[in-house]
Amino acid sequence: VRRFLATVPASQRRKVPVVVGSGALALLEDDLAATAAGRLVVVVSDSNVAPLHGEPLVGRLRGRGLRCELVAFPAGEAHKTRETKASIEDALAALGADRSTLLLALGGGVTGDLAGFVAATWLRGIDVVQAPTSLLAMADAALGGKTGVDLPEGKNLVGAFHQPAALYADLDVLSTLPEMEYRNGFAEIVKSAVVGDAAAFARLERDTAALRRRRGAPLERALVACLRLKARVVGKDERESGLRMILNFGHTAAHAVEAASGYAVPHGEAVAIGMAAEARLAIDAVGFPAADALRLERLLEAFGLPRRAPEGLPRDRMLAAMARDKKNVRGEVRCALPREIGRMGHAGEIATGVEAERLLAALRGD
Amino acid sequence: VRRFLATVPASQRRKVPVVVGSGALALLEDDLAATAAGRLVVVVSDSNVAPLHGEPLVGRLRGRGLRCELVAFPAGEAHKTRETKASIEDALAALGADRSTLLLALGGGVTGDLAGFVAATWLRGIDVVQAPTSLLAMADAALGGKTGVDLPEGKNLVGAFHQPAALYADLDVLSTLPEMEYRNGFAEIVKSAVVGDAAAFARLERDTAALRRRRGAPLERALVACLRLKARVVGKDERESGLRMILNFGHTAAHAVEAASGYAVPHGEAVAIGMAAEARLAIDAVGFPAADALRLERLLEAFGLPRRAPEGLPRDRMLAAMARDKKNVRGEVRCALPREIGRMGHAGEIATGVEAERLLAALRGD
Repeated sequence: VRRFLATVPASQRRKVPVVVGSGALALLEDDLAATAAGRLVVVVSDSNVAPLHGEPLVGRLRGRGLRCELVAFPAGEAHKTRETKASIEDALAALGADRSTLLLALGGGVTGDLAGFVAATWLRGIDVVQAPTSLLAMADAALGGKTGVDLPEGKNLVGAFHQPAALYADLDVLSTLPEMEYRNGFAEIVKSAVVGDAAAFARLERDTAALRRRRGAPLERALVACLRLKARVVGKDERESGLRMILNFGHTAAHAVEAASGYAVPHGEAVAIGMAAEARLAIDAVGFPAADALRLERLLEAFGLPRRAPEGLPRDRMLAAMARDKKNVRGEVRCALPREIGRMGHAGEIATGVEAERLLAALRGD
Repeated sequence: VRRFLATVPASQRRKVPVVVGSGALALLEDDLAATAAGRLVVVVSDSNVAPLHGEPLVGRLRGRGLRCELVAFPAGEAHKTRETKASIEDALAALGADRSTLLLALGGGVTGDLAGFVAATWLRGIDVVQAPTSLLAMADAALGGKTGVDLPEGKNLVGAFHQPAALYADLDVLSTLPEMEYRNGFAEIVKSAVVGDAAAFARLERDTAALRRRRGAPLERALVACLRLKARVVGKDERESGLRMILNFGHTAAHAVEAASGYAVPHGEAVAIGMAAEARLAIDAVGFPAADALRLERLLEAFGLPRRAPEGLPRDRMLAAMARDKKNVRGEVRCALPREIGRMGHAGEIATGVEAERLLAALRGD
């Protein structure tokens, strides 16, 4: 018997070009016209976004001489499945997609996760450009490389880490976003400021009214700060083995609320509720200043986001969801708690063990 | 509009422990007993290997106190599909598999590709230990990280690069391998020697008779040389953007033979035919010594492997398969041709453009 060590490689660290602002999609067209000649470009959108933004974009890209096709799937998280992934793959096979094919994920988080996962596994990995059309996807889902599909047993059980080739967040498309969806996006923007950017938090406090009116300049500033922080964290820990866990602030509680409500509570609202709850918990647990917890509650309120779990969520389903959280260690529920606004704990103390009952109480507002 | 570059990371370069020899599975049991306590171990096997090796192994691992389950799927390349992958995932969900779960791929190339792909995407990536039971899988498929499933439109169209956590190749399981399957394994072992190890080639010439009698010591030596070379190549170029292409020697022609025969010609035989054909071509194309081509033909013959394409393969289907080869550049068919036994071309001249008609003639023995 012989034993030896085979050194196997790693993909290269890469720089992802990020474009944020009004008119980003026009820049995407310019960039593709300059670089994607001869490549097949497949725009993936859901049935809502395809007629609104997908078809016009495909038309414009064809007008620039590119070979471009649209593949649409039925809208809704219920379609973030292996079956929808297979249907997109069948379309790629029919189009003769090869290693040079470029996927363009044009839509919200479901579209980015699905198209990103298809790209991660088509011929063992092709390029995907993320063009998010919801504020939540712009702020969180489109950068970081998490892709996947849901199974009946749970969300994102099957997926891959696959960083986008580029990201274009066009603020103009937000003008058609329903108010509730727009508001939800601020949950992740606030989270990002709490975990690593005190100056961005102060700007959010100052600019709330302008941001709610969808004013371009402050929105661009807020998104850029949010994406820079995410890139900094993910650049150090793609696979969430340590530092990346700080991005989970509020999420242990949020996942419990989402699961217990049967996903009736949207992700942004759940994260807002979860942050408020975990901040309350953090006061005693890790010395988070009570004044910072108050500032956080006020900012969430100013964005029209909830701070307490809705009445009547089944207690056993919330506890069951907490018990399944991926940050748990040996059955102990853990939360990624901030030390103060703009600063999380260091490696080794990022996720703090908490009593599930205490977290339930915090979700009620205690 | 703001543009910036987000630095995103890379998985870590890792060392894969490789164990080759008689009794490797017993060492696997010892290693798991020492390291996998508290983890769920899921053995994935096909319906042939499950009763022969899978059930006994699961019994022994349970006897060592491990939580171990067997998941079997129907044997045969026809079942290397998205549907079989989904059925294994459903089994993992039912077992409550989490990020600490370890998959153990026990079987031939289909099992390694399928279980490896499941591991690549379960919760965005969990550990897989490869325990190949065919000589071909030991020599080629189990190391290198290529995983995937077939689509009706082509083989391995959907998959991922996912390096194994460890590899255990137990020569004892080869005793039950049918003669034809055993023989086929030598095609990739010979290929490895041609592309990078002249000394190993000479040992294969010397040890042919002992190797055909399945003698342990020379077989262990041959496999270790083959896997060391593969690790060296894959360690420098996981994603086949350059150097790894040398492992494609013989494969442009082999894929044409496989596809044109409707995969009736097994992979090992096709690679033997392909190497003989591409070696003939290499004499004129890149100055491969005629004496080396003759040594290669004789070695393949000594292993009972074919050197010419079977009569009657449809010419148009062979040309179509060549036209689809992933090494093609702007429609030109390319082969990874050796300069002499043990030495390939350098980066930039690894894959040489050839006329498809000339390759067809070489496959006929001209």
